[in-house]
Amino acid sequence: MKITVDSLDNLTRGAAFLGTGGGGDPYIGGVVARHAIEEYGAPEVIDVENVPDEAWLYIIAGMGAPTVMIEKGLSIEAASLAVEKLERHIGHKAYAILPVEMGGLNSTVPVALAAMRGLPVVNADGMGRAFPEIQMVTYHVYGVSTTPMVIANEHMDFCLIEAGSGKRAEDMGRALAIQMGLNVMLSAYPMTGAEAKRTAIRGTLTLAQEIGRAIAEGRRGGDPTEALLAYLRTTPYYKTCAVLFEGKIIDLQRETTRGFSIGHCTLAALDGSSSRMDFTFQNENLIARVDGAVKAMVPDLICVIDQETAEPITTEALRYGQRVKVIGASVPPVMRTPEALEVFGPKGFGLDETFRPIEELI
Amino acid sequence: MKITVDSLDNLTRGAAFLGTGGGGDPYIGGVVARHAIEEYGAPEVIDVENVPDEAWLYIIAGMGAPTVMIEKGLSIEAASLAVEKLERHIGHKAYAILPVEMGGLNSTVPVALAAMRGLPVVNADGMGRAFPEIQMVTYHVYGVSTTPMVIANEHMDFCLIEAGSGKRAEDMGRALAIQMGLNVMLSAYPMTGAEAKRTAIRGTLTLAQEIGRAIAEGRRGGDPTEALLAYLRTTPYYKTCAVLFEGKIIDLQRETTRGFSIGHCTLAALDGSSSRMDFTFQNENLIARVDGAVKAMVPDLICVIDQETAEPITTEALRYGQRVKVIGASVPPVMRTPEALEVFGPKGFGLDETFRPIEELI
Repeated sequence: MKITVDSLDNLTRGAAFLGTGGGGDPYIGGVVARHAIEEYGAPEVIDVENVPDEAWLYIIAGMGAPTVMIEKGLSIEAASLAVEKLERHIGHKAYAILPVEMGGLNSTVPVALAAMRGLPVVNADGMGRAFPEIQMVTYHVYGVSTTPMVIANEHMDFCLIEAGSGKRAEDMGRALAIQMGLNVMLSAYPMTGAEAKRTAIRGTLTLAQEIGRAIAEGRRGGDPTEALLAYLRTTPYYKTCAVLFEGKIIDLQRETTRGFSIGHCTLAALDGSSSRMDFTFQNENLIARVDGAVKAMVPDLICVIDQETAEPITTEALRYGQRVKVIGASVPPVMRTPEALEVFGPKGFGLDETFRPIEELI
Repeated sequence: MKITVDSLDNLTRGAAFLGTGGGGDPYIGGVVARHAIEEYGAPEVIDVENVPDEAWLYIIAGMGAPTVMIEKGLSIEAASLAVEKLERHIGHKAYAILPVEMGGLNSTVPVALAAMRGLPVVNADGMGRAFPEIQMVTYHVYGVSTTPMVIANEHMDFCLIEAGSGKRAEDMGRALAIQMGLNVMLSAYPMTGAEAKRTAIRGTLTLAQEIGRAIAEGRRGGDPTEALLAYLRTTPYYKTCAVLFEGKIIDLQRETTRGFSIGHCTLAALDGSSSRMDFTFQNENLIARVDGAVKAMVPDLICVIDQETAEPITTEALRYGQRVKVIGASVPPVMRTPEALEVFGPKGFGLDETFRPIEELI
């Protein structure tokens, strides 16, 4: 199977849904992959199981602020430089490119780089969603070292980091990303096929594509939200899902600070009741409450979509007065183990709540 | 000639004078060199002319906040790691360690590392004083690339940077230094003996030592300030020198921001007149005025010393009510060329004034 130009709209739409507010802008994601595929040809998509145990995989992701990325455009040359420097440091060429997260942008950057390098892209990632910090990934939770890690920008400035912990790598990488212009490419977690088989979440690239397709098909005569939920219920990961709230944005606080988009959003119900939902975010949506009662929390998905079209809405695209639905969905069991929750459960974001799965909350 | 434990007090005192407020704390500088020399033996001091043209030299310097360095202590292991990573990247072992600046700390860190590695230390540096930013050095002005550059901390976290300009290397390095705890070791400007012969300022390690000795000897019965000035007049670089002002600190604004100690200090004359001196600093003292008239400006030296003992006072050690003398002194001609002034003249610090040498101002 190949990822073609025709499939990019579905891929970026579905990945933006899984991005739960973050993971980059789907428009930029589409542009960067389209350019690369048109110039270099469509890359092959392979399963983790088809990667030899001793082969090396390299991840690539954009890191920064969507506003800067839209203005400046993404540099696939910077992505290539980052992986190349890491390959040279490790001493092994890439067998394939491995996604790290699903999001409007970070689902397609690996596709674009794979196209450019003439390599396959692996149908897997490290979360089946998006998260704001570098250490928030199954690769880290299950023992792949975050570093060596390379960050590069469009000037071909780069930085190779080795840090004693994933959190320190995140802190150093974030400071550099801010200084290098909030539009950088990151390659980290160099790993073998054997390590990917042990830690990666399978099938997420095609799942994203199918989620995008379900929404698009639902728009033709049916209800796109219903079509989306119906498809999610057939998946191995996102099968527990529901509309948590339907409302209008009546309050939105959002600031770009410490290299993140951090804030809080309140919705008023559209059914005439006095019911309110509020959710907080750090790039991605973290915890959603209806009238004070928690309805979903990380790592489960909290996704904002347009009320009519079911188009996913990223944190940066939230606007006062928007009419939206908020969907909650489960994540793979491997994302809910005690060691996983330690890193990207509520505690990983400084929240006081103890994780409760969406199955118990809705 | 060797740098022995007995000579360290003079070296750190004289280097702190040349540091013009910055270049690190002389107490920490003394401690780190003493420990290294006691454990590994005194390093040989060699002239630049004795380094083979094709041999490789590596610089090392501490970067951060004196308060943090005093609390945590310096890591000579981090210094060693930084140079080792750069050696591996370049593919050539160090022939000797080369100082980058004269200052209470950064004159002795190369001495300590040379001792530890069993290498000579070169009797030269890249300014004959101290400056706050990485690109502010003759090595940069005269064409040695700032990067590859390595920054390391006491946790053995490290980062190898390649940047398209010295200023970008500074920006990236500063952001990392802040994130890594404001107590890091930096190795940059890897260069050959031929490049050092073209760009380095000769003899500064022994000059610093002799400045410290002149002050110490002046205290035995004579006037230490007069002894200091008398010695400076015999040197090839600092020979135009004078007491610019003698006064008491009546106003001091100082904040640690963007990784620097930035501020402004006002002195009231001790002679009963209403005369005032004020000077500004960014780690190092930048421009000094008496009653509004400029008396000295970068790159010329503006050094604050204790009124009685002539002990150099760093920016961090300035205190309200201190009685001090402010000395101005010339720098080598190579520091005052148009290309040098572009980097570390008044303009390099955002000052409006055009450089005028101290010879014209006093």
